[in-house]
Amino acid sequence: MINSELFKQLEFIKEIDKLKLIFRKTRIFDNSRHENDAEHSYHLAMMAVILSGYSKEKIDVDKVVKMVLVHDLPEIYSGDIMVYNKKQGEISKEDIKAADKIFGMLPQPQGDELKALWREFEEKKTPEAKFAAAIDRLEPIMQNHAHNGGAWVQHNISAQRVVEVNSHIGNGSAELWEYAESLIKECATKGYIK
Amino acid sequence: MINSELFKQLEFIKEIDKLKLIFRKTRIFDNSRHENDAEHSYHLAMMAVILSGYSKEKIDVDKVVKMVLVHDLPEIYSGDIMVYNKKQGEISKEDIKAADKIFGMLPQPQGDELKALWREFEEKKTPEAKFAAAIDRLEPIMQNHAHNGGAWVQHNISAQRVVEVNSHIGNGSAELWEYAESLIKECATKGYIK
Repeated sequence: MINSELFKQLEFIKEIDKLKLIFRKTRIFDNSRHENDAEHSYHLAMMAVILSGYSKEKIDVDKVVKMVLVHDLPEIYSGDIMVYNKKQGEISKEDIKAADKIFGMLPQPQGDELKALWREFEEKKTPEAKFAAAIDRLEPIMQNHAHNGGAWVQHNISAQRVVEVNSHIGNGSAELWEYAESLIKECATKGYIK
Repeated sequence: MINSELFKQLEFIKEIDKLKLIFRKTRIFDNSRHENDAEHSYHLAMMAVILSGYSKEKIDVDKVVKMVLVHDLPEIYSGDIMVYNKKQGEISKEDIKAADKIFGMLPQPQGDELKALWREFEEKKTPEAKFAAAIDRLEPIMQNHAHNGGAWVQHNISAQRVVEVNSHIGNGSAELWEYAESLIKECATKGYIK
C-alpha cells in the first residue's frame, strides 16, 4: 500500500547497501582489514561535525555532512580508484554514468539534489566542497601514517607525490594541511616512504 | 604544532574507528556477513536524508542526521545488545559510563553537545529522536525481511514480539510503520517466524 515515491526511495535505500562491499586501498586504523566506502563515508561525516571549525572559509556544516554521505555512492558501479591513479580534477564519463544510475533511482527533485551535491564535491570549487575534499584526503593520510606508510608503501608512492596530490587540503583548512603534512614528513623521515 | 583542542579531536576521530569492529545481530542486505555499527550509522544517516518527509512531526533533518551518526558510539565500549534483550526505555549505567568515556575525549562544549544528542536519542521524546528511533528500527526490519526472517529466526523471536518492540516506529512515522508492519506480516504469513 506504499506510494510509488516511497517505493523508489526504499529501493534506493536497499541499493546503497552495496557501498559496504566497495573496498578502499587504505585499511581501518587497527590495520586488521581494508576499509569499505560506507565506513569511510561514516568517518568523514563525523570528521565534518568535529572539525568544521578549522575550515578556511565559512561553511554550512550540514551541507558538508550530506555531501560526504553521498560523495562515493557512484563507486557502487564504478568502483574505488586510488587517488594517485586519477587525473586531478577530472570527472570521467564512467563516473557520470554511475552517478546518473544511482541518483536516478530516487524520485525528483530529491535525486537531482543529491546528484548536484556529488558534482559539487567533485568540482572542489565551493567552500563546502573544498572542506569536504580536505577531510576526504585527511582520513587516508591518518590511516597510512598509523600503518607506517600503509598503502603508500604497498603502491610505491613517494612523499613528494603524496604532498602533490593532497596539498589541496590547504584550500579547505590551513590547520588540517599543516597536520597532514607533518604526518607525511614523519613517514618520510622514518624511511617508510621515499 | 597542533593545538591541544585539535589534538583531542584527532584522538577522538581515531578512537571512533572502533565502531567498525562492533558487529550487529543483523546482516547486510546481500546476506554475506553481519553489519557493523559504522555501516549501520551510515545507512541511518542516508535514510534520514531520504525519508525525512515521512516524519509525523516537523523535524530538523540535519539534527536527525547528526543524532544517528553518534547514536551508537558508546557501543564501542558497551557492545551491541539485541533490542529484544533490552528493557525498553532504559538507559543502563554501563551505557552512561561508555557515553561519558567516548564523548569525554572531545573538548568542551563539543563533547557535551554530542552526548546530549545521544541522550536525546535514547529518551525518544523529541520529534527528532522519535524519527531517528523509527529509522533505527526500520533498517534491521528491512534486512531481516530480506533474509527470510534473518536474526528473528536465529534468535527465535515471534512476530508478536517483533511488532511489540518496534511499534514505536509509528510514533516517528505512520507510513514507515505501515511499511514495517507489512514486512513483519509477510514473514509471519510465509511461516519464517511464529
